[in-house]
Amino acid sequence: MKIFLYGVRPDEAVYLKEWENANPDVEIDYTDKIVTEETVDLAKGYNGVVMLQTQPYTRLALQKLHDFGISKISVRNVGLDGFDFKDLRDFGFSLTSVPVYSPNAIAEHTTSLMLRLLRRVPEFDEKFNNADFRWFPTIGEEINGKTVGIVGTGHIGSVVARLMLAFGAKVVAYDIKPDPYLENLGIYVDSLDEVLKQADIVTLHTPLAKRDIHMIDKAAFAKMKDGVIFINAARGGLVDTDALIEALDSGKVGGAGLDVLESENDVFQKKFDKIEDVKDPQFQALLNRKNVIMTPHTAFYTTTAVHNMVFDSLNDNLKMLNNQTPKFPVDISED
Amino acid sequence: MKIFLYGVRPDEAVYLKEWENANPDVEIDYTDKIVTEETVDLAKGYNGVVMLQTQPYTRLALQKLHDFGISKISVRNVGLDGFDFKDLRDFGFSLTSVPVYSPNAIAEHTTSLMLRLLRRVPEFDEKFNNADFRWFPTIGEEINGKTVGIVGTGHIGSVVARLMLAFGAKVVAYDIKPDPYLENLGIYVDSLDEVLKQADIVTLHTPLAKRDIHMIDKAAFAKMKDGVIFINAARGGLVDTDALIEALDSGKVGGAGLDVLESENDVFQKKFDKIEDVKDPQFQALLNRKNVIMTPHTAFYTTTAVHNMVFDSLNDNLKMLNNQTPKFPVDISED
Ligand SMILES: NC(=O)c1ccc[n+]([C@@H]2O[C@H](COP(=O)([O-])OP(=O)(O)OC[C@H]3O[C@@H](n4cnc5c(N)ncnc54)[C@H](O)[C@@H]3O)[C@@H](O)[C@H]2O)c1
Ligand SMILES: NC(=O)c1ccc[n+]([C@@H]2O[C@H](COP(=O)([O-])OP(=O)(O)OC[C@H]3O[C@@H](n4cnc5c(N)ncnc54)[C@H](O)[C@@H]3O)[C@@H](O)[C@H]2O)c1
Repeated sequence: MKIFLYGVRPDEAVYLKEWENANPDVEIDYTDKIVTEETVDLAKGYNGVVMLQTQPYTRLALQKLHDFGISKISVRNVGLDGFDFKDLRDFGFSLTSVPVYSPNAIAEHTTSLMLRLLRRVPEFDEKFNNADFRWFPTIGEEINGKTVGIVGTGHIGSVVARLMLAFGAKVVAYDIKPDPYLENLGIYVDSLDEVLKQADIVTLHTPLAKRDIHMIDKAAFAKMKDGVIFINAARGGLVDTDALIEALDSGKVGGAGLDVLESENDVFQKKFDKIEDVKDPQFQALLNRKNVIMTPHTAFYTTTAVHNMVFDSLNDNLKMLNNQTPKFPVDISED
Repeated sequence: MKIFLYGVRPDEAVYLKEWENANPDVEIDYTDKIVTEETVDLAKGYNGVVMLQTQPYTRLALQKLHDFGISKISVRNVGLDGFDFKDLRDFGFSLTSVPVYSPNAIAEHTTSLMLRLLRRVPEFDEKFNNADFRWFPTIGEEINGKTVGIVGTGHIGSVVARLMLAFGAKVVAYDIKPDPYLENLGIYVDSLDEVLKQADIVTLHTPLAKRDIHMIDKAAFAKMKDGVIFINAARGGLVDTDALIEALDSGKVGGAGLDVLESENDVFQKKFDKIEDVKDPQFQALLNRKNVIMTPHTAFYTTTAVHNMVFDSLNDNLKMLNNQTPKFPVDISED
């Protein structure tokens, strides 16, 4: 069997090697280029393909893959936005994804953002750089004893819940489909509003369904406690960023940790000459606040996560090639 | 009853007010000055005194307190280095301290240092400031799945152990006097060497007994795993700082989080014009490394800790004045 991988970064290559050693019967090769109508020729002669990209997969590229006799596609991440499922159906493709690669990576990053905000790390960093080593008056707060509100208790939110309980926080969680095990821990409240009302720290862990665009808007911020710490390492579109900026200006929000932004596609994963060159006004309005920490969608970015993205996608591609049931099949029967 | 407090910072004053409201029969007053032969006169007419300072308490100052009819002293922290117990005995003083004010404050700071080092926050901060929002190649690591070595499992180390288990780490701990409850968790190994050998992350939580000066020396670093993350939020003197610097230079230590330093008295709690003015060569050798995070002895500095320092010291001072047994008496019968 021969599998070809697209869009491979150097940090993924070590895990490719590892997987190859564990599967000596499979031949793999790869490129750092993404799938286009030109690069698709590289896959000629291979049985399956594994990909990862944010740009769309064009119908012509998929048709060419089909013409090479390839029918098994695996993506190394969750996101399927780049596919038109009708194209996949028309050419008879089977598709797998990696829906969960390391919930701990995001849960640990979320915890780190909370701790950095509660302990006023940006202020201490600035003092340190100014050779001011006095702690007063930069007093911090503890997670222990706080009420932490978790919106969405799936793969990631449930890990955050368990961590917060270990820190000695009171957890108040809301999920449209509560998890029976977590229900035993007595963490659920009946509504998003109840979470917003009770929590000293609010953290989001839901997908971005259409109905949840701007789930956290002006009215939602108004329901929160004064000085609340607000964390979003889920999806930028869940938050009305202008309302967040207003809530920061008024002091309603005491600190914000943001791994995702509504307009992140124009900023994150890019390199600018200097920070003033970033034209996004929301990004600029959030910048240079001592109580805002932005990270460029790095919550997931650990060796464990990358290992799992490589291994799970290759394992599933091979399973499909061997006519076995893959672990993470994607239902492409509907758009 | 009347109690006078020395060395009060503005962040403590809010808790003094709170305590006063809860104890309306007691009159309290305070100064931001520390106890000296001059300021001691401020306590005239009061029944008890509460103090906090790093400078020594002189015999003459104590004698004057005695002459004012004061015999109950409470300190708001752990440290008793400033007292000559013989002086206290000679003048018939009773003493209380606050040996534990918030183990969680230090345990959370320790966790935060680990997360910041594992996720390469100093490198990401620099990239961010340079308008480079690409995650590659700054890949991070997770606590989950790591082996965390804890030296000393008392008030603070035991909280760190429980947190690390919740993160999904394997904990290997060593204590000269293991805790029976933690023993049930199966975390203890038989020696410090065994901790150093197994751990991906080593964190110190022992006091600084004379025999433990430079507990972590050149030989100890040599026993650790290559690239180990090393955390010290206990006492600077536990570590041979020159050996640590060497281990950072060689790559043996992959990251260090230091809330305490051997020579911190010349640096921390002070303000310099610029960072080059800090003359300590060890501090300078640790500075400007992307894999070293120094915090100026701030691990304890939370509102919870300061609340407890104020409340516990005042409660104990009042108990002594009312001839009740204080919660945290200090045995001054031996030097
Ligand atoms: N920052 C990053 O690097 C990164 C990495 C991976 C995932 N994510 C994001 O994290 C989020 C959570 O991922 P996951 O793997 O835990 O997803 P999941 O599907 O396992 O869990 C999501 C949970 O949210 C619940 N939910 C859905 N809509 C809700 C609503 N309106 N109110 C309350 N609960 C609701 C669901 O019932 C489910 O339990 C997603 O938005 C995902 O895109 C971010
Ligand atoms: N950075 C800060 O802001 C801060 C604040 C408070 C305390 N501390 C420091 O944290 C450390 C721990 O404090 P604590 O309150 O947990 O103390 P503790 O007395 O409750 O616990 C210390 C533990 O270390 C064990 N121990 C002593 N010597 C040992 C050795 N050689 N090897 C292994 N174990 C040994 C003891 O048996 C005990 O269980 C102390 O050094 C203290 O000064 C730092």
